[in-house]
Amino acid sequence: MSFLDPKEQLERIKFGVAEFINDEEMLKKLKRSKETGTPLRIKLGADPTRPDIHIGHTVVINKLKTFQDLGHHVIFLIGDFTATIGDPTGKSTTRPVLSREEIEENGRTYAKQIFKILDPNKTEIVYNSSWIGKMTPGEFIKMAAQYTVAQMLERDDFTKRYRAGTPIAIHEFLYPLTQGYDSVALKADVELGGTDQKFNLLVGRAMQSAYGQEPQCILTMPILEGIDGVNKMSKSLDNYISVVDTPKDMFGKTMKISDDLMYRWYELLTDITAGELAQLQQDVADKKKHPRTVKVELAKFIIKRFHSAEAAQAAEDEFNRIFVDKGLPDDIPVVEIEKIFIPAEGLGVAQLLVKLNFAASNSEGGRMVQGGAVQIDGKKITDAKMKLSTADIDGKVVKGSKTKFAKVKLV
Amino acid sequence: MSFLDPKEQLERIKFGVAEFINDEEMLKKLKRSKETGTPLRIKLGADPTRPDIHIGHTVVINKLKTFQDLGHHVIFLIGDFTATIGDPTGKSTTRPVLSREEIEENGRTYAKQIFKILDPNKTEIVYNSSWIGKMTPGEFIKMAAQYTVAQMLERDDFTKRYRAGTPIAIHEFLYPLTQGYDSVALKADVELGGTDQKFNLLVGRAMQSAYGQEPQCILTMPILEGIDGVNKMSKSLDNYISVVDTPKDMFGKTMKISDDLMYRWYELLTDITAGELAQLQQDVADKKKHPRTVKVELAKFIIKRFHSAEAAQAAEDEFNRIFVDKGLPDDIPVVEIEKIFIPAEGLGVAQLLVKLNFAASNSEGGRMVQGGAVQIDGKKITDAKMKLSTADIDGKVVKGSKTKFAKVKLV
Repeated sequence: MSFLDPKEQLERIKFGVAEFINDEEMLKKLKRSKETGTPLRIKLGADPTRPDIHIGHTVVINKLKTFQDLGHHVIFLIGDFTATIGDPTGKSTTRPVLSREEIEENGRTYAKQIFKILDPNKTEIVYNSSWIGKMTPGEFIKMAAQYTVAQMLERDDFTKRYRAGTPIAIHEFLYPLTQGYDSVALKADVELGGTDQKFNLLVGRAMQSAYGQEPQCILTMPILEGIDGVNKMSKSLDNYISVVDTPKDMFGKTMKISDDLMYRWYELLTDITAGELAQLQQDVADKKKHPRTVKVELAKFIIKRFHSAEAAQAAEDEFNRIFVDKGLPDDIPVVEIEKIFIPAEGLGVAQLLVKLNFAASNSEGGRMVQGGAVQIDGKKITDAKMKLSTADIDGKVVKGSKTKFAKVKLV
Repeated sequence: MSFLDPKEQLERIKFGVAEFINDEEMLKKLKRSKETGTPLRIKLGADPTRPDIHIGHTVVINKLKTFQDLGHHVIFLIGDFTATIGDPTGKSTTRPVLSREEIEENGRTYAKQIFKILDPNKTEIVYNSSWIGKMTPGEFIKMAAQYTVAQMLERDDFTKRYRAGTPIAIHEFLYPLTQGYDSVALKADVELGGTDQKFNLLVGRAMQSAYGQEPQCILTMPILEGIDGVNKMSKSLDNYISVVDTPKDMFGKTMKISDDLMYRWYELLTDITAGELAQLQQDVADKKKHPRTVKVELAKFIIKRFHSAEAAQAAEDEFNRIFVDKGLPDDIPVVEIEKIFIPAEGLGVAQLLVKLNFAASNSEGGRMVQGGAVQIDGKKITDAKMKLSTADIDGKVVKGSKTKFAKVKLV
């Protein structure tokens, strides 16, 4: 195995990170790795209770891919120890006890999703119950001896709860310790996580030192903003792209993001390098490339990753057919219409134009049709008395004039 | 099995305690015990690292005997779990790792000592490693979930250390939990301890409630004052009576204590009842009994307990022979003389009198001998030039005049 120059590797590794601890130790590890031809061991842990992920969750996996591309050994750890025993306090519903079957099913779903990004042949999947679950009480005590109460209370959420008088059960102190001990068991050189994981990753460093190992470097990735470009991507805010979304949805949602967010997504979701991204931004600034073209490439990258190259091309073709070739803008607003307002005999076209706020009255709507500007799904409408079924309009783009467009969504 | 009336039992149980939690629960337990003919389960835990105990340590065991005399089932728990794993921080030398052999040897020594007080045929000896050591990590986590960080930090020593910024390793939180869990494993109805154990005993109550058991009552015994009547009995203060002291030493040390302390020792070290003790004090006040006689009875009780009735009688006879019959006071001070000051040819008797501060000079010492008042071990000394070997004087009472007495202790 031959590795890139350590400094070049470090540059790629650090691109896009929120925090990295630290350069000096990492260079030492990378140099030794190159000299001895030994890949570094890169750890990422995940909770097996939530296998249904959106692309915001893949930011860290994308960074794991960087390590894999650099020739290092990536280990995807499924933290099933907690899940198999559940939260014994019974005070929380966030940690239900999962059966072995559920955990393995979730693990398979996880694997399926991460292997859209990672090479399955080069990725090791491990379950921490296989070592934590076998510890003796003595080993458990030894583990608990490596960290202090004061250190643990420094964790943000513990600090707040302790100050507020909200109970912290003692076993909650044990979970970060087991997570840290995982790094000992795996002899991890680097551990990745979201910014909210920094404390736990640091526990891993401390535990490795306590057990006589060289401490791992830690790398946190920022939270990805959702389609709105403001809030973090989340299902509850409905500003997300799921990894199981259709190619069409992935394409459509990506095309809606701002140019600024587009560069951010390139940085965090693709395999672009810092130099390539700078070049792309320069080309747009110099008008050598149209921002829409750059966005289309991003959308295709995402579809290619989670579906296929063919699906990506098909989505682009469909997009061109509907929007570009027909002179439709690519930011057509979606207007929701409640199905109960659609009569059994069908909705009059003039009524539709009123519901979309294109016309103030049915008679104005009728005149618009007679004017010849009204189109549904690219087809010109000539009969002002025409009745439309739900199938005629749901998901279709309605053109009311040269500037009035709406996509109908029946709800 | 027939039991005494619950209220009478409670009165005996509570006699001499520092704190008892609580009457209501205890009466309920005692009533149920009497009605069903089922002995209560009484727990006392001990650390197996220190089997060499003094009579101060037996105060709690003496109370355990009260329960045994009342017909209840006493369980002496040897807390070997910690000892077998040691203190894993390496910061403390107070919890050395003991081998299984050492622990069992200490356990046998303990048993030998407590069986001077308890009936071996009615005492169950258990080692908590037999259940704590077999817990799975999941069970351990469940145990740790039953208590909060804030509750644990309320323990006096933890509060102080946390406030002072002195590290508390997380495993230190686990020890009180395992001790509390012992009560669950043993289904204890009552747990005894010193006043310093109150927090841990309360954890036992909490753990039993958490595991769906009726919480144990807890009983703490006060710290016994040493011979000086001021400080707690301790080896480092040299104010103690060891359970392996000779009958003679036990007798001599007991005869030195004040009358007030004598009643305290009766309360905490013997099987006297509250009524009997009140009667004893009344008899002394009424001059029906001489305090010295009462103290002799106490000394004999102690010797009888840790040696035999014969040894107790012999010690009294010896005491009478040396002190009472010869008119010696019973509070002769011990004077230490360093062996290196004793010449190889022996110490001159005049020099001895100087060392004991009976004479200001050798010539004055010589005149005292010639005056005929000097005695060693009851034998009159007539030769002022006499040389005394270490054997001649070590442990012997030297009389310099009618009011000058000293017991020599070579060091």
